[in-house]
Amino acid sequence: MLCCGDMYSTFGHNFRITTFGESHGTGVGVVVDGCPAGLGFDLARVQQALNRRRPGQSRFTTPRDESDRVAVQSGIQEGRTLGTPISLFVANRDQRPGDYASMDTAPRPSHADYTYLMKYGLKARSGGGRASARETIGRVAGGAVAEMLLEHFGVRCVAWVSSVGASDGAVVVPEEMTRELVDASPVRCPDPAAAARIEKEIEAALADNDSVGGIVTCVCTGVPAGWGEPVFGKLDAMLAQAMLSIPACKGFEVGAGFLAARSRGSCMNDAFRMGGDGRLRTLTNNSGGIQGGISNGETIIFRAAFKPAATIGRVQQTVDYAGKSLQFECVGRHDPCVLPRAVPIVEAMTQLVLADAALMQQRHPLRGQTE
Amino acid sequence: MLCCGDMYSTFGHNFRITTFGESHGTGVGVVVDGCPAGLGFDLARVQQALNRRRPGQSRFTTPRDESDRVAVQSGIQEGRTLGTPISLFVANRDQRPGDYASMDTAPRPSHADYTYLMKYGLKARSGGGRASARETIGRVAGGAVAEMLLEHFGVRCVAWVSSVGASDGAVVVPEEMTRELVDASPVRCPDPAAAARIEKEIEAALADNDSVGGIVTCVCTGVPAGWGEPVFGKLDAMLAQAMLSIPACKGFEVGAGFLAARSRGSCMNDAFRMGGDGRLRTLTNNSGGIQGGISNGETIIFRAAFKPAATIGRVQQTVDYAGKSLQFECVGRHDPCVLPRAVPIVEAMTQLVLADAALMQQRHPLRGQTE
Amino acid sequence: MLCCGDMYSTFGHNFRITTFGESHGTGVGVVVDGCPAGLGFDLARVQQALNRRRPGQSRFTTPRDESDRVAVQSGIQEGRTLGTPISLFVANRDQRPGDYASMDTAPRPSHADYTYLMKYGLKARSGGGRASARETIGRVAGGAVAEMLLEHFGVRCVAWVSSVGASDGAVVVPEEMTRELVDASPVRCPDPAAAARIEKEIEAALADNDSVGGIVTCVCTGVPAGWGEPVFGKLDAMLAQAMLSIPACKGFEVGAGFLAARSRGSCMNDAFRMGGDGRLRTLTNNSGGIQGGISNGETIIFRAAFKPAATIGRVQQTVDYAGKSLQFECVGRHDPCVLPRAVPIVEAMTQLVLADAALMQQRHPLRGQTE
Amino acid sequence: MLCCGDMYSTFGHNFRITTFGESHGTGVGVVVDGCPAGLGFDLARVQQALNRRRPGQSRFTTPRDESDRVAVQSGIQEGRTLGTPISLFVANRDQRPGDYASMDTAPRPSHADYTYLMKYGLKARSGGGRASARETIGRVAGGAVAEMLLEHFGVRCVAWVSSVGASDGAVVVPEEMTRELVDASPVRCPDPAAAARIEKEIEAALADNDSVGGIVTCVCTGVPAGWGEPVFGKLDAMLAQAMLSIPACKGFEVGAGFLAARSRGSCMNDAFRMGGDGRLRTLTNNSGGIQGGISNGETIIFRAAFKPAATIGRVQQTVDYAGKSLQFECVGRHDPCVLPRAVPIVEAMTQLVLADAALMQQRHPLRGQTE
Repeated sequence: MLCCGDMYSTFGHNFRITTFGESHGTGVGVVVDGCPAGLGFDLARVQQALNRRRPGQSRFTTPRDESDRVAVQSGIQEGRTLGTPISLFVANRDQRPGDYASMDTAPRPSHADYTYLMKYGLKARSGGGRASARETIGRVAGGAVAEMLLEHFGVRCVAWVSSVGASDGAVVVPEEMTRELVDASPVRCPDPAAAARIEKEIEAALADNDSVGGIVTCVCTGVPAGWGEPVFGKLDAMLAQAMLSIPACKGFEVGAGFLAARSRGSCMNDAFRMGGDGRLRTLTNNSGGIQGGISNGETIIFRAAFKPAATIGRVQQTVDYAGKSLQFECVGRHDPCVLPRAVPIVEAMTQLVLADAALMQQRHPLRGQTE
Repeated sequence: MLCCGDMYSTFGHNFRITTFGESHGTGVGVVVDGCPAGLGFDLARVQQALNRRRPGQSRFTTPRDESDRVAVQSGIQEGRTLGTPISLFVANRDQRPGDYASMDTAPRPSHADYTYLMKYGLKARSGGGRASARETIGRVAGGAVAEMLLEHFGVRCVAWVSSVGASDGAVVVPEEMTRELVDASPVRCPDPAAAARIEKEIEAALADNDSVGGIVTCVCTGVPAGWGEPVFGKLDAMLAQAMLSIPACKGFEVGAGFLAARSRGSCMNDAFRMGGDGRLRTLTNNSGGIQGGISNGETIIFRAAFKPAATIGRVQQTVDYAGKSLQFECVGRHDPCVLPRAVPIVEAMTQLVLADAALMQQRHPLRGQTE
Repeated sequence: MLCCGDMYSTFGHNFRITTFGESHGTGVGVVVDGCPAGLGFDLARVQQALNRRRPGQSRFTTPRDESDRVAVQSGIQEGRTLGTPISLFVANRDQRPGDYASMDTAPRPSHADYTYLMKYGLKARSGGGRASARETIGRVAGGAVAEMLLEHFGVRCVAWVSSVGASDGAVVVPEEMTRELVDASPVRCPDPAAAARIEKEIEAALADNDSVGGIVTCVCTGVPAGWGEPVFGKLDAMLAQAMLSIPACKGFEVGAGFLAARSRGSCMNDAFRMGGDGRLRTLTNNSGGIQGGISNGETIIFRAAFKPAATIGRVQQTVDYAGKSLQFECVGRHDPCVLPRAVPIVEAMTQLVLADAALMQQRHPLRGQTE
Repeated sequence: MLCCGDMYSTFGHNFRITTFGESHGTGVGVVVDGCPAGLGFDLARVQQALNRRRPGQSRFTTPRDESDRVAVQSGIQEGRTLGTPISLFVANRDQRPGDYASMDTAPRPSHADYTYLMKYGLKARSGGGRASARETIGRVAGGAVAEMLLEHFGVRCVAWVSSVGASDGAVVVPEEMTRELVDASPVRCPDPAAAARIEKEIEAALADNDSVGGIVTCVCTGVPAGWGEPVFGKLDAMLAQAMLSIPACKGFEVGAGFLAARSRGSCMNDAFRMGGDGRLRTLTNNSGGIQGGISNGETIIFRAAFKPAATIGRVQQTVDYAGKSLQFECVGRHDPCVLPRAVPIVEAMTQLVLADAALMQQRHPLRGQTE
């Protein structure tokens, strides 16, 4: 029996990526389509973004060193984009299918083994490789290209870990955050007090052979008013899809988010004021920079909730495919907390959404002509 | 100057809707594309879904009676779908552009007036009409067609208001919820105790000339394992986009959602068990019926957070387009709480996502043949 | 059994139409998506385009008077586009399903009755209504909107009947053709000598109760160099799809077309010269204004071949669905030659392709800035 | 200035390819998306298809030996497709940008140098690399995957050179053609008499330092009735787009094609008969196996016209970018006739169209259930 193939490895409309590759195949990569011609392209920056995503960066992440080297396959010449598809490829170095042999008899709890089997009729080692965190390499590489485009518009995206587990969240001024500030913390939390709490949460989980979830906050500054499409292409709707498409993401909120659901309109409405630069601004930003799905020129701010990693070092009581009870135990070391590594992925997906919206908004025929 | 047009009035891939129409134009409607031929079509059910969305159904909603009558323009013959585009149209009866004259000089706080102006160079009365709740008529009509298709798969979607404002949420057994139970409550909350709290919240907001937000919970039963696409088309990613595309929605979470972000893996993992029907089931459902973006055969459950309606009966301090301070006041009566009316819209969008996933998963060549 | 629905009632990417409606349903229409906001909109011009498509305009076309009146359902306010979906609708006046009763027992030769049955499991009266010429009303209406946009770029499309049957083709200067010149001839051929030959061919076919095919030539002037996408979105590839999507079209050629296949490169190459306006021009135009799929600033010229109408007044020997031999005879009067009515449809589809390419080419970020 | 990027390197909807790579970059490749899981995959067959496309196969093609080796980057495991994106890559071996230096000052006549410059603001060496025949490597590799899928449906595509230059066309029985018969001729014409004429035409062009155009005929057998979508996705419309997207293709006709435009309906209509296998067949096949855009179960037959290669060994009088007259002369040896090498490209694009249509037609919910 042949089962249907994946139709959704492509993301975006005007600025568009297609990712490919399994964790246990030859490599992983991305084709970026629709990127304007003549854009300065710096491969070192793509590599840098990938390095931030890589495991083994601190004692809080798995020590497996993948040291992924990205190579350009097409679309670039003499340091500039050609306007043609940009293919970026990262070879897999460390293929150890043996580690995953147990999956063949039993689906791992809260992994995608079982659902991939039901979809494709194949065991996880194969199709499930697309559910692996390694698939996100293509996203991060594509997001780095999007970032180069967004710089031309003065747009900047920064994400950080705002909380892990039950700890109180970080308290920072969103507009002041930079990647340097974020990366100064091994857990990528720019509020030192919160970072300390987060480290403690992760260390406790590690000590318990357990994993722990958390929240990433992302801000985008410099986005002009008018980006995003009404109805189904609302900027926050695209961001929500982008976030929930990241492995382990279970929730999304923009601006006041779930708090808005507990509030009154008189508290939540963002009254207008005249800004110093002669454009309308809002006094508050409960809308998170997006009203009616379209950017209003304020800082875009949203949060993404990540569940704890499903792979834990503890024995789990479950059943095999035949329904026979068994004790499931993962071998090897694993990330107790994916949050620090999720930060560059959140940024990449955000940049892809914004680059798409940016190009979409350029379609102004006869701009500047009187009519 | 010509500004770019909307590119995103279409939702879905295999089962696809395109909505059209402004609140102040001739009417609103939807074209449903990709619906299989030969499906029994009952216009009364489309009308029934629209009636649930309509204002003026109880003392908790605005008394404006729109009494929208839906008409079939194409795609149906003798009570069956033809496999061709189904166009459904609802004429506007009550066009009172005068009510909105004040928008021409000042953008209403937390409405889309300002962002539409920045996007299209047009004042809200026109383009902004797509940001109106009236645009959702097309979604609800399209969702009713999707529901007729989903019934063939034994899939059923039910949504309800689980909380409003600061009140504690409803406590119900998700799988037992029905639309009858939901509609038995004027605030569409099937837990009588919670319903009473919600009524109190809404009445308090009404008394204060204010509005109040809330949360809608939605469950889908009967979804077979294997629906949803990996990577960017994850079932929960599509649901997140669908929810955030609804006016006033500011947050989405699936399964344990934001709570998962505060939890340990050992608590959140859904261990497998053998079900009475011979298929693998999970002991818990923290995944919300979706693992790795693909349905696992458990009940799909998610929540959508809605901010309080931006239109309130209180004087708001803001500025006009020229930056001059003014006191903004809405005339006429308005919904203190959109939540009860959001319920059928949430169901419609959910049904559209699932119908799309259902058709996607049918693409099995040579099904049942040995290879 | 449910059969798959139509997935391709949508055409275009940035400027996009979705047509709907059957010849025997309530009506037919189109939703135009992506049209820029602020464009002057003249409904009379849409009606005028539809009038040119209508049957019964001369003794050479079927006398059935459909007198289709188009109505705006959305997207227009005070004579301008809103940037939102534009829905245009034409009610069906004359529904005579009885005329087509014979189809229920036997498929008409070279109609779509049999193939629609095999696709949808439904007889022609229903699904087959989308194969009817009446479906093209939506295209012509959408094309009229595209034309309003193209005028801003100085682009003009004119098509005419260049030959019918075995008659020699029209000899004209493509760039001098106008719709007035074309419509001055009842067979829409602007070369009087060729028009006379065409009239004779049609009259002969009419006298024989037969139909006859022909060729439509289309030219586009004012298209700037640089429109069209490389690889799969070549301008001529999109035009080819557009033409072959018109009922009865069986062939397409651009520039020298099939003649180029019989020629040498030294004859076919278009050498460059410097134009009086300071831009590069070509000495010849065998490329038909398109090189490598991208417009080169010369006149775009192509031809579309239409087979004779399948409906003829002669007895045809065929079989019914059960395979029983029968003599098939169409009742009522029918067009002996669809060519004159195909002219506005060819223009409409061409305008849709060009409007899409025009918007695509606008996506230039930071245009005019130094880098 | 940044110019817009290519949006159309993707072809297909359900079975979809994205090609990437320039002739002067690192390599070229393709990502195949939507291919069903579990399909037997034979890399040797992909290589074989690429070998047929390669230059240097006979004295009639350019002697440049590219010897392209294709490698799998993703989507395959243990000889089967995973249902995930299949990335296939061919490294460039022979990068000689020097050969093309003259393009920097003058656009080559009837090449895409000038149009790419106008589109992207870049000289041909870069963006123009996508207009090179080398881009078709990705198509041929993707088409080979499509062929493996089509075999499951019993569908077979064979193309051949039917004429070159002014020579009379090949006379063969379409259904009897095989690739072996075709490849038995160095010019890929299975009619020995026509092949001799074609060889003579090519040799004459070669002797004149000239190039010559020709026609490829393609037949598809085993296509069941019901494939193809009505309206814009007609099977012949998709084939027309596919053919015109091939470099140098200037015309397309299906069935009787342009001849139908010169004919009467009474001659062109395909009367039905009952076939020996109990299904309806047609007595003639002027429709070319497609009626109303949908396959009717007969052999699909169409022709694609290719202009002579623009690169010729003769001096051409043209101008440089500044408008200065010059004599243009290509150095090195070039194909006098691209037709033999176009054959596998025509087959590949045809197979991509049919694989897409095949998967589209599988979306039958509840197939085989009574309703």
